Amino acid sequence: MTAVTTSSALATDRSDELTLLGLVGQLELVAFTRLAADSALAPSLDQRLRLARFSAGAVARLDRIFDRIRELGASPQDEVARFAHVMDDFDVRTPSSIWSERLLKAFVGYGVADDFCKAAAAGLAEETCTLVNEVLDGASHADLVVAELGAAGADDDVLIARLALWGRRMVGESLGVVQSLLQSQPGLARLVTEGAVIRGEAADDAGHPDAVGRLFGWLTAEHTHRMERLGLTA
Amino acid sequence: MTAVTTSSALATDRSDELTLLGLVGQLELVAFTRLAADSALAPSLDQRLRLARFSAGAVARLDRIFDRIRELGASPQDEVARFAHVMDDFDVRTPSSIWSERLLKAFVGYGVADDFCKAAAAGLAEETCTLVNEVLDGASHADLVVAELGAAGADDDVLIARLALWGRRMVGESLGVVQSLLQSQPGLARLVTEGAVIRGEAADDAGHPDAVGRLFGWLTAEHTHRMERLGLTA
Repeated sequence: MTAVTTSSALATDRSDELTLLGLVGQLELVAFTRLAADSALAPSLDQRLRLARFSAGAVARLDRIFDRIRELGASPQDEVARFAHVMDDFDVRTPSSIWSERLLKAFVGYGVADDFCKAAAAGLAEETCTLVNEVLDGASHADLVVAELGAAGADDDVLIARLALWGRRMVGESLGVVQSLLQSQPGLARLVTEGAVIRGEAADDAGHPDAVGRLFGWLTAEHTHRMERLGLTA
Repeated sequence: MTAVTTSSALATDRSDELTLLGLVGQLELVAFTRLAADSALAPSLDQRLRLARFSAGAVARLDRIFDRIRELGASPQDEVARFAHVMDDFDVRTPSSIWSERLLKAFVGYGVADDFCKAAAAGLAEETCTLVNEVLDGASHADLVVAELGAAGADDDVLIARLALWGRRMVGESLGVVQSLLQSQPGLARLVTEGAVIRGEAADDAGHPDAVGRLFGWLTAEHTHRMERLGLTA
């Protein structure tokens, strides 16, 4: 794997690694704030407590990312600050009006963002790749969302239809965030492509696999799986 | 110490212990939510991150309280739920209009609440008393508040005067919360009095020290120390 990485014309460098770590760190910080606000608004004490624990967990994950950035000789705050407003547009454009929409928004939005980070992490050397995957796998509050939305929609076809529509809107907005990240941060596109090279995906005439093109298909498929867990049509 | 506790007519019981643990747990949950909201509003990334860590710390402290409630054979959620709205009135009555007022509000309000809980914990058997004190001592984000407010007020006499006034209002409201807790939860008053018995404070003609009366003097003195750390007149 090392041989492929170093021989590739696309080979990524430390600055790309730091870019991805900065993005993951910022997303954990956003997740902390978001889940804490969800906790404050939760309709029951049980949900409030569970969301509080997920929120605190995001801070622990953030600290693991910070440790790695420091190991690489950079400033965690500087790296995270580069993505200070990464979710702002998304949030402004998608005000949720009921609790189940709010839960679904985080589920879909973080799901897509986490998958994107994993796709980019595939282009990194093993140590950081493993760290990013561990951090993102620990981030899921999917079980709570599945249980709550399953219960909320069990006897309510109108709500199920409303949430399915909301999910489609959320995934569209989330893919828009990914698109804009790929444009503004070429290092992330390099990492996604490098991941495809490492996996040995077929290359085009220029010698590069069309990894960024395929990324959106994969993100959409993963979203569809998540919606299926909720019993919703993607 | 055990002899005094068991011989006293005021001796507290397990239900009083659970009452205090429920209150401390609820205050940690409120602190988590509050500090997370402070983090989201913080003017710099550094403050945002520090407040996020304090917020996550409140969840860890909450879990220690929950463990102890379970050890005593009770339901943590039930005990905490009894104090579901303990700070609601305080929050509604004291909307802060600037960042430094917001910081000071938490500093004063939690300071008084924590001191009150410590005064009540003094009436408990050693294990839970130690736990409550450890939890509350870990809760302080005083250093951040002192640094931030010190910097904010360094060259601004108008702000200093405004914050001193705000601090006086906050302590009045906070003592009102304590007053209402003592009235609605007689177990807490028993614990405060038991603490005075354990310390060997002089008793009145009925054989009880006037611990609740002295409590407000002590809370006010502690508040004055905190304000002095900020360079503010209490």
